[in-house]
Amino acid sequence: MSAFAATPEPPYYAVIFTSLMSDDTQGYAAMAERMLELAAQRPGFLGVESARETLGITVSYWRDRDAITAWKQDIDHRHARQLGRERWYAAYRVRIAYVEREYPR
Amino acid sequence: MSAFAATPEPPYYAVIFTSLMSDDTQGYAAMAERMLELAAQRPGFLGVESARETLGITVSYWRDRDAITAWKQDIDHRHARQLGRERWYAAYRVRIAYVEREYPR
Repeated sequence: MSAFAATPEPPYYAVIFTSLMSDDTQGYAAMAERMLELAAQRPGFLGVESARETLGITVSYWRDRDAITAWKQDIDHRHARQLGRERWYAAYRVRIAYVEREYPR
Repeated sequence: MSAFAATPEPPYYAVIFTSLMSDDTQGYAAMAERMLELAAQRPGFLGVESARETLGITVSYWRDRDAITAWKQDIDHRHARQLGRERWYAAYRVRIAYVEREYPR
């Protein structure tokens, strides 16, 4: 799997998730891996790019807003997000963005 | 400076820049720092978030597309991008995206 997401010709959507970890990281890595597996199976999932230093940045790409909304409502994903808020993340931001251009192609 | 960009209420724009470094990193760090300083002085610059593991992800936020275009045309920035393509990056992607939502606020 390439580090780059193999996204199609725009337009499509991006979810830019930035986070700072708390001191409690128990169970986080396994859950993150599991959520990536589940997301990748969703209709409309286009790919993901991720890096962490102090700040973690994960950008997932989606066909449209409906695909993002459906994944947000997934029960396992809801549970994971709740644990994230309660335990793993000191702070986070989510930005939903409409990708208009991508280059080089 | 917080790791998170202090972006305003959407809408605004994001430039999602993902990259893989080449083996030639000489001069890269100083140039990246210089470009960040210059970008931060541009009208319409809203902030930046960055992380690198294997993949580097830098998301810069801008008031509108005109601000992005003006920064893209900056002569020092053009020179830096040329060096990036020729020396520092094995591969990269740029995505221009319209941020519709941000939470929590």
